[in-house]
Amino acid sequence: MNLSRYMKERQRLVDRTLRALLAPSSGKPPRTLDRAMRYSLFSGGKRIRPILALASAEALGARLEPVLPFACGLEMIHAYSLVHDDLPAMDDDDLRRGKPTNHVVFGEGMAILAGDGLLTEAFRVMAEGALAAPQRGKAALRALHEVAAAAGAGGMVGGQVLDLEAEEKKPTRTVVEAIHTRKTGAMIRAAVRVGGLLGGATPRQYERLDQYGTAIGLAFQVTDDILDIEGGTEKTGKREGRDAELNKATYPAAIGLDRSKRLARQLREDALSALQPFGPAAEPLRQICHLIVDRAAPAQT
Amino acid sequence: MNLSRYMKERQRLVDRTLRALLAPSSGKPPRTLDRAMRYSLFSGGKRIRPILALASAEALGARLEPVLPFACGLEMIHAYSLVHDDLPAMDDDDLRRGKPTNHVVFGEGMAILAGDGLLTEAFRVMAEGALAAPQRGKAALRALHEVAAAAGAGGMVGGQVLDLEAEEKKPTRTVVEAIHTRKTGAMIRAAVRVGGLLGGATPRQYERLDQYGTAIGLAFQVTDDILDIEGGTEKTGKREGRDAELNKATYPAAIGLDRSKRLARQLREDALSALQPFGPAAEPLRQICHLIVDRAAPAQT
Repeated sequence: MNLSRYMKERQRLVDRTLRALLAPSSGKPPRTLDRAMRYSLFSGGKRIRPILALASAEALGARLEPVLPFACGLEMIHAYSLVHDDLPAMDDDDLRRGKPTNHVVFGEGMAILAGDGLLTEAFRVMAEGALAAPQRGKAALRALHEVAAAAGAGGMVGGQVLDLEAEEKKPTRTVVEAIHTRKTGAMIRAAVRVGGLLGGATPRQYERLDQYGTAIGLAFQVTDDILDIEGGTEKTGKREGRDAELNKATYPAAIGLDRSKRLARQLREDALSALQPFGPAAEPLRQICHLIVDRAAPAQT
Repeated sequence: MNLSRYMKERQRLVDRTLRALLAPSSGKPPRTLDRAMRYSLFSGGKRIRPILALASAEALGARLEPVLPFACGLEMIHAYSLVHDDLPAMDDDDLRRGKPTNHVVFGEGMAILAGDGLLTEAFRVMAEGALAAPQRGKAALRALHEVAAAAGAGGMVGGQVLDLEAEEKKPTRTVVEAIHTRKTGAMIRAAVRVGGLLGGATPRQYERLDQYGTAIGLAFQVTDDILDIEGGTEKTGKREGRDAELNKATYPAAIGLDRSKRLARQLREDALSALQPFGPAAEPLRQICHLIVDRAAPAQT
């Protein structure tokens, strides 16, 4: 398969669906709010989470359509989390994906509300998706629950709290892992789970997909940490060395750069071996795994 | 019925359920986040929205238990909205219900995250409620969707945006109504609708309940506006005249104090007449309507 073409096609599918689902079923959002939400939602994100949800259903030979509203919900929640993370009271970032951050353009109050709006609308969109597929009602509810649990106080929001609190301390491996599994890992894992649930995975298939999701969720953040040191602004859209500047708890800070790269490669192996029983239908999931890890830790040949 | 005893019993029931449902099914929230969320969730709120959801189901002679997780979700969303509204970038309030606001106690970053956590956990709690009542799956999904739509960009978040934007302009009645129906009205209306959906209302009953919810949703904010002028801190928990200070778009500012009181009384009449077909089972809904409006505009005898 041609991964680059696959990703572009899926990004287009996700973007088209996002635009369609954002138009509210009732109550028009104020113009400025709508603009602020779309500014961060359509700012060149790679759509990794929605594409993972779709690719997981695909690995099961399932239809993609019922997964789409959940794929969009995942991306809306991801977009909200970036808007809030960049706020002056949090990481105070003025650049994201090479563009001024939301609060720089719209002001702090509007950025908070744009984030709140994206988060809430994500659940509206997922609930509408669930209502549109009554024959999958239970699976859709479980998927919605997965997303809420992964995004909530025990997941992504909790991870951001640990991240803020860690800026004061020397990062240990335990601390870094606790942050990353919650802050990034939980939502990536949820994306894979959502595809499994809506794709009708058997318990055994679901377990395998979950192993894959857990491994790439952590791998994603490890490679992000490495790229913050080695990547440069053109690759990350952020200022290089920004994490070190903020004294962020990262893997390289906790265990060094070389061991971080070895860990990323190990997680790639774990992810790929979990996919073994799925055969060719899981090829997109395999390629996405390479895409994530190879950015920072190319396979040794 | 003894309204004061009824309210106290229901508040206790809601608080007990909130405590039980907050304990996460997976992933423990960090301690500080948990404390910050609970600080605002258990700060003496009257629990009007959850009690309305329960009383609507009661008016239909339905069981309360399936409504409880949704009642709690409504209150968690209400609590989050207050935390974010009070932030320095928004209304910059340091006092809420007579206590220091969340960001004054926990800092701005943590207050934003506590709000995000409460909002996300609300959907987790509602999804768990829906999963626990599979025989009502469709109604529960519709209820969850109602709450998301009422809280989102076309509802409460949109209302807060209009509110912020209106601080610059002279308030007209149209502007004030647009703000209030979204900012406060939508969630109160959603509370009543949720009770109707989960209580198994017929389309005709649902329509009547919705008329009631729309009327008291607006009445609630009109009386709040009046109390900001006449109420004093001990009645409102806020500094008296705070709205006028911020040049807020309020009914008294748009149409004067006397006409605001007449409007509140008219809305009370609308609400009560919508309940007419329900008989004695709707007595709590009637009393709550009086409770809301009589604070600022006692019935003329």
